[in-house]
Amino acid sequence: MRVIPFRFEGNRFWLLDQRRLPKEEVWVPCQTAGEAADGIREMVVRGAPAIGVTAAYGMVLAHLSGQDPAEADRVLRKSRPTAVNLFYALDRMKPHWGDLEGSLREAQAIWAEVEATEQAISQHGARVLKGQVLTHCNTGPLATGGYGTALGAIIEAHRLGRVSHVWVDETRPYLQGARLTAYELQKAGVPATLITDNMAAYFMAKGQVDAVILGTDRMALNGDFANKIGTYGVAVLAHHHGIPFYPALPLSSVDPHLETGAAIPIEERSALEVTQLRGVQIAPEGFPAAHPAFDVTPHTLVTGIVTEKGVLYPPFDDALRGALGWG
Amino acid sequence: MRVIPFRFEGNRFWLLDQRRLPKEEVWVPCQTAGEAADGIREMVVRGAPAIGVTAAYGMVLAHLSGQDPAEADRVLRKSRPTAVNLFYALDRMKPHWGDLEGSLREAQAIWAEVEATEQAISQHGARVLKGQVLTHCNTGPLATGGYGTALGAIIEAHRLGRVSHVWVDETRPYLQGARLTAYELQKAGVPATLITDNMAAYFMAKGQVDAVILGTDRMALNGDFANKIGTYGVAVLAHHHGIPFYPALPLSSVDPHLETGAAIPIEERSALEVTQLRGVQIAPEGFPAAHPAFDVTPHTLVTGIVTEKGVLYPPFDDALRGALGWG
Repeated sequence: MRVIPFRFEGNRFWLLDQRRLPKEEVWVPCQTAGEAADGIREMVVRGAPAIGVTAAYGMVLAHLSGQDPAEADRVLRKSRPTAVNLFYALDRMKPHWGDLEGSLREAQAIWAEVEATEQAISQHGARVLKGQVLTHCNTGPLATGGYGTALGAIIEAHRLGRVSHVWVDETRPYLQGARLTAYELQKAGVPATLITDNMAAYFMAKGQVDAVILGTDRMALNGDFANKIGTYGVAVLAHHHGIPFYPALPLSSVDPHLETGAAIPIEERSALEVTQLRGVQIAPEGFPAAHPAFDVTPHTLVTGIVTEKGVLYPPFDDALRGALGWG
Repeated sequence: MRVIPFRFEGNRFWLLDQRRLPKEEVWVPCQTAGEAADGIREMVVRGAPAIGVTAAYGMVLAHLSGQDPAEADRVLRKSRPTAVNLFYALDRMKPHWGDLEGSLREAQAIWAEVEATEQAISQHGARVLKGQVLTHCNTGPLATGGYGTALGAIIEAHRLGRVSHVWVDETRPYLQGARLTAYELQKAGVPATLITDNMAAYFMAKGQVDAVILGTDRMALNGDFANKIGTYGVAVLAHHHGIPFYPALPLSSVDPHLETGAAIPIEERSALEVTQLRGVQIAPEGFPAAHPAFDVTPHTLVTGIVTEKGVLYPPFDDALRGALGWG
């Protein structure tokens, strides 16, 4: 079963509250652009493509509730500072300001394009996976509204009989792996085992990891990419053990203004997400903690880049320019 | 301030309840050998050297409360079946059965030897550390009753002005770093920052980790060693970034029967410690999880081994045999 994180129904945009998964399945109704922005900011919905679709429907809600489109656009843009898909979706909605039907059509188109792109990513990615696969964070339908990127490829590879088992990094501090990837794999019926992030090297050394595939928040033109904190460490470990390592992404996550990953800004989130865990204080009161939410993995650690146009191999700068149609 | 996990006072042996740290400092009084055994079994006190000292004082309590020494010895031996230090301490107490003064002197001697060994480890270790140091799990006075091993070296290096800042791996799943190492560094007044285990690579890549030092559960004669899960991954990451990597240990943790680390058995602990966190369920109900409690790091990733006889350098088999007096 494919999990879908939102639906548009009864003139409301409903978000499956991902903060309460896997314990409870609670749907949060949004009636205004502000409520959609709250849902993005408070991580009721998360994952770059899912945020883009939510922002697009946020603009539909603005029209339905008679809000000023410019004001709604401003509120939505502020909801998550680093999400490129957010800005992309809002840019596409702009020509339809003041036009309810046009904006609804555009939001539907954005969602449909997400689905088509991810179906292609899943199919291309599935062909390079086999045996036991390790993944980090959450890149499934919950994060995207479509088929997922890396997790879509894993689920498709399992369907094809290529992948037998998945190692799921719990992905501290926010536990997207333990909470969301585990939930999606359980729903999809794929055999999987949860591990703490620091166990990945152990299973790699035992020869029980045949490939790593994970998502990409933002990629530079040379193949360097930012993704959830911990991705870079997994890349180093895979490299050390000679295990193929694949970031998966829609080509829209390639930033055409970035030559390398060096300039990608890293969002620093609240230290409380490290010192507390689901509301339980785990460190001494007031103890300092760091929380870089992302890290950057250099292209030198990448085996291949899984995109909707196929799997790209080195030299990545040529391959990416070709896939982007700059060839 | 050095945290000490127990004290002998008013004919009672008092244990600082480590299960309740860092939230509360609660002292549990033991009046009988059975109460000392309960404290060991229920992990009020933990860490191999600290368990040995507690067992020795458990025999003192037996004499004070008029218990049969053979019965007290039996109860204490059963408290943690795999702790080598426990049996070592009880063997040393045996010649003093029926002799209160003799048993008290021997218990004090065992404690004093732990302190002297760890003071030497701390001083030798401190000389190889500088700048910013990363550590994993808990190796401080709480685990030992002495000065600690790796954490003792860090605290001493800070006192000498050599170390400016410590990165504390939280150490999932049991969070010894977040709960205990953070607590000890706070008490010692050493500037430190808590990170999730998967952030280590990020700070290494930024050039903010000058050395890694951590504990050792058991070492083979070639320098391969078992330690808390996650140690091996940190070793690979340090190697990739050219960062010196030091295990610290008393020479009593070298297993003279092991030529390499390949034969070290890895304890598999309950999956519930991964799927739940301090009582909070974080994964879907019934989702499978793995929990190898330790991993093995090959000596090829080790820069130097910190012992009470100095820091040993490759070839480690010769250096270890020399330090053990087999030279």
